[in-house]
Amino acid sequence: MKTWRINVRTQTLIIEEPPQSWERLGGRALLARILLDEVVPTCEPLGPLNKLVFAPGLLVGHMLSSCDRISIGAKSPLTGGVKEANAGGTTGLHMTNLGMKALIIEDWPAEAGLWVLHLSVEGARFEAANDLAGLGVNETAQRLLERFGDKVAIALIGPAGEMRLNAAGIQNLDKDNYPTRIAARGGMGAVMASKGLKAVVFDDKGGERPSLADPQAWKEARKAYSTALMGHPQTKVYHDYGTAAVAMMCQGFGALPTRNFSEGTFEKIEKINGEFLRETMLQRGGECDISHACMPGCTIQSSNVYAGPDGKRLVSPLEYETIGLMGANLGIGDLDMIARLNAEVNDLGLDSIEIGVALGVAAEAGLIKFGDGEAALELVHEIRQGTALGRLIGSGPATLGKVYGVEKVPVTKGQALSAYDPRAIKGTGVTYATSPQGGDHTSGLTIRAKIDHLDPKGQADLSRMVQINMAGYDSLGACVFAGFGFSVQPDLIKNLINTRYGWEMGEDFLQVLGRESLKLEREFNRRAGFTSAHDRLPEWMTRTPIPPTNAVFDVPDEDLDGVFNW
Amino acid sequence: MKTWRINVRTQTLIIEEPPQSWERLGGRALLARILLDEVVPTCEPLGPLNKLVFAPGLLVGHMLSSCDRISIGAKSPLTGGVKEANAGGTTGLHMTNLGMKALIIEDWPAEAGLWVLHLSVEGARFEAANDLAGLGVNETAQRLLERFGDKVAIALIGPAGEMRLNAAGIQNLDKDNYPTRIAARGGMGAVMASKGLKAVVFDDKGGERPSLADPQAWKEARKAYSTALMGHPQTKVYHDYGTAAVAMMCQGFGALPTRNFSEGTFEKIEKINGEFLRETMLQRGGECDISHACMPGCTIQSSNVYAGPDGKRLVSPLEYETIGLMGANLGIGDLDMIARLNAEVNDLGLDSIEIGVALGVAAEAGLIKFGDGEAALELVHEIRQGTALGRLIGSGPATLGKVYGVEKVPVTKGQALSAYDPRAIKGTGVTYATSPQGGDHTSGLTIRAKIDHLDPKGQADLSRMVQINMAGYDSLGACVFAGFGFSVQPDLIKNLINTRYGWEMGEDFLQVLGRESLKLEREFNRRAGFTSAHDRLPEWMTRTPIPPTNAVFDVPDEDLDGVFNW
Repeated sequence: MKTWRINVRTQTLIIEEPPQSWERLGGRALLARILLDEVVPTCEPLGPLNKLVFAPGLLVGHMLSSCDRISIGAKSPLTGGVKEANAGGTTGLHMTNLGMKALIIEDWPAEAGLWVLHLSVEGARFEAANDLAGLGVNETAQRLLERFGDKVAIALIGPAGEMRLNAAGIQNLDKDNYPTRIAARGGMGAVMASKGLKAVVFDDKGGERPSLADPQAWKEARKAYSTALMGHPQTKVYHDYGTAAVAMMCQGFGALPTRNFSEGTFEKIEKINGEFLRETMLQRGGECDISHACMPGCTIQSSNVYAGPDGKRLVSPLEYETIGLMGANLGIGDLDMIARLNAEVNDLGLDSIEIGVALGVAAEAGLIKFGDGEAALELVHEIRQGTALGRLIGSGPATLGKVYGVEKVPVTKGQALSAYDPRAIKGTGVTYATSPQGGDHTSGLTIRAKIDHLDPKGQADLSRMVQINMAGYDSLGACVFAGFGFSVQPDLIKNLINTRYGWEMGEDFLQVLGRESLKLEREFNRRAGFTSAHDRLPEWMTRTPIPPTNAVFDVPDEDLDGVFNW
Repeated sequence: MKTWRINVRTQTLIIEEPPQSWERLGGRALLARILLDEVVPTCEPLGPLNKLVFAPGLLVGHMLSSCDRISIGAKSPLTGGVKEANAGGTTGLHMTNLGMKALIIEDWPAEAGLWVLHLSVEGARFEAANDLAGLGVNETAQRLLERFGDKVAIALIGPAGEMRLNAAGIQNLDKDNYPTRIAARGGMGAVMASKGLKAVVFDDKGGERPSLADPQAWKEARKAYSTALMGHPQTKVYHDYGTAAVAMMCQGFGALPTRNFSEGTFEKIEKINGEFLRETMLQRGGECDISHACMPGCTIQSSNVYAGPDGKRLVSPLEYETIGLMGANLGIGDLDMIARLNAEVNDLGLDSIEIGVALGVAAEAGLIKFGDGEAALELVHEIRQGTALGRLIGSGPATLGKVYGVEKVPVTKGQALSAYDPRAIKGTGVTYATSPQGGDHTSGLTIRAKIDHLDPKGQADLSRMVQINMAGYDSLGACVFAGFGFSVQPDLIKNLINTRYGWEMGEDFLQVLGRESLKLEREFNRRAGFTSAHDRLPEWMTRTPIPPTNAVFDVPDEDLDGVFNW
């Protein structure tokens, strides 16, 4: 597996042997290593010294269920720190079929303009793409598929990325060639735009699957993993309800962000929860798909396709985070309205978490009323129009809150919190506070732990464990739900890794990867200027109670500072 | 001298004996001590835990020429760090006549609304001021003077402060009762608004001048200082030309920020420099005043009143920073246009440095064209209208640049650089980079030093010395130009201080104060999350040459990190 290094100024590709120190890393951990090795931590995130890096996880390449995710990273224009955002879809598979350990995109274009970068066994080629300027990801993907054939993978940006908005992500094609799998967080779409790229097309024609050190043993390991995964009760829950299954759980804990994180329960929960979503989709039929795979070979199929009242595809996927943050958090108890918001945000190529929270702050600032979905949609339309207000919404809640003088802005390290109020799920609060990635549930969600989520004690230990595991999964290219399978037998991961690579990793390989990843990310952030003062929730959350539990965030600073003491 | 402590929630005043550790501090040093003692460094700057503090310098109270400045500070919403902004005018004198060592304004108002806080020998009283909402500082000051009489001092905010914009300052009345003396930098106006205050009225009726330990010796010291000041050649230059005298010097060094810091000389310099300004004002006559005192008793009178072609007062003062940043930096070679921009920004209660640089970034982003003054003025009008774009401009260039994806944003610690390009005046670059205040020439301007300003060597030592002295002057309440006098004889400061307070300070008292101030500020910032990574110029200035010298900023990081090694 090689490093593909693209210079966008000279429009050239160099294929290199990666350094030894990169060999046993993949995905998130590899990104952190590369950024630390090659990117000046104090550089301008949208300047020529930043690099945009794609790295498939270590398990990517063989359609193991839920294990073909692609990690995309750079210094984040949103947080100013290290960033990894990952996604499903087909990008990872095409990269490994082309023999890519990592794709590193460097420098600045020599002249203004938009380009499509095409990568195949024949190397790299730049094609002018000014005709795609301003197009949403749906139209862009369609045109690119017509141009390059429907067997390619594509990573692309929408108008939000072109505008260099800090909430702009990078979309990837799903198994049905829709651009729905977004590496959403931290502004990676803005970084891609700064490199002059509207899209990267990966064509694995003529490539081949990564070799296996011991094919027979690998097959057995694969089978054991699949069996474990399929047998786990949660697999069925997520198959049937998707991530929206968690909505009632959040409501139960009083942790459902409602009206800009001012309450923890939503009076219209019954109109937006997983059960209602499932029922609605079953009744509607049409193009609804309640169990959709985001990657080829996924057996969990937690994703979905949501159709409107007319039975026509409206958005995919409709996830819990969006339901929470564009629903309860905006006081909107209407799935169709949420889906319309979501569809528009997706087409713009934006992170729906960042935008959901930004819209909540906009309501707090009096720009719209809580509950007024059409007004919220108007604000999203402003983003497409590129107005000052639109750009502000698309820059995320930290910036919006600063410009409108809002005190209650739910962010850490400048990044919006996900749809779990940290005062009521304190372990996840520890994650938000201390993760090198900023506010982000995928860095370590603790809601499933058997613990009193309101008790500050023990939350730092819990968060540490989950953060390490999640960083490990992100480095393997494994979806969080793959963890249902891996949790059954301690030797599943090492067997898959060792039979594929011929290594001799132990049962703690997940944690080894996770710890390495976090260590490297923390070091990058340290050099970029982060300290323990940044490993905190916003100060207002430590003194403003959240009904109905009326909890504040009271995990002691010493506990927060101890999360990475290992 | 007492601490006056106001709680805006309970609308109560407590007058206290200050702690011993505050006794020998004043102005900037005292602010730093109070913030470190009383303000949670990670608090929301516009939340109830921040405090707004007024502290006169140690020499304030006796109309020593150029030594009655008032320091205003808080945790800055602009930089997130410690902030001191100082101004001339009459606020300091009224405070010392009322026996105030410091005024500390705490908490949040219990209900929405605007208030005027009236302070006198009778104590504190809150008067509703909703009728002043949205008014500019000129109209506001006029109404308050009608209401409270023309013998009061007033610190007040304009619409920008009410909107909680990060570039909003606090204006103070000058000796003629115009609200022209602004504690401009770092968003102190937004903090004042968060406390519910439109204005603080200081009425020293019935108060008395601070006592003197040895009145006779003090008079002699005062006379020696006055003689030294009046005899210094620069005093006459600043009397005749004001700060605009420095424009040609900057141009000569290739350090005049032109078109968003992309060049160091301006082809229309002859239309905006000090000589042209003086000539214009002399020709126009009318309400022009080329040698205006900003404080009672000032003999330098570097300030001015600029009248338009009709001879009517247009703006006061028209200073070099504004001429540089709203002139050359916007490609505008027209003093009347600059004066109109300046007048509007002043009336809004905004920092003209922050806005000048923001308008340059706006031009870089394509929102206006360089050289189009009317378009720039339209953007400033948007601030008054409170549009999203207006709020963005009023939030300063760091935020504006982030929202518009601009790479070349001239800020440090989130605060706009002043009108000296740091690549061509590298000692001042060291100050911008390392000052705990963020980009700010008043923290340590090095342009007058006899040194090769392009040579990176020795700049850190120079900046250290000047930063210490400036922090000392800011703690004495002395204008930078008072330094012309103090520089003549090493015992002037200690004589004035010792005869007033009965202390036994040495000739290094200025440096003792300055070092203490910087030490305390650095400690506050450290606790707020600042590291050496923040003691840097923007990365693009280290690789983007500035014509005509084509210098980059190349003072080594080790030198920057050594500035505070004492």
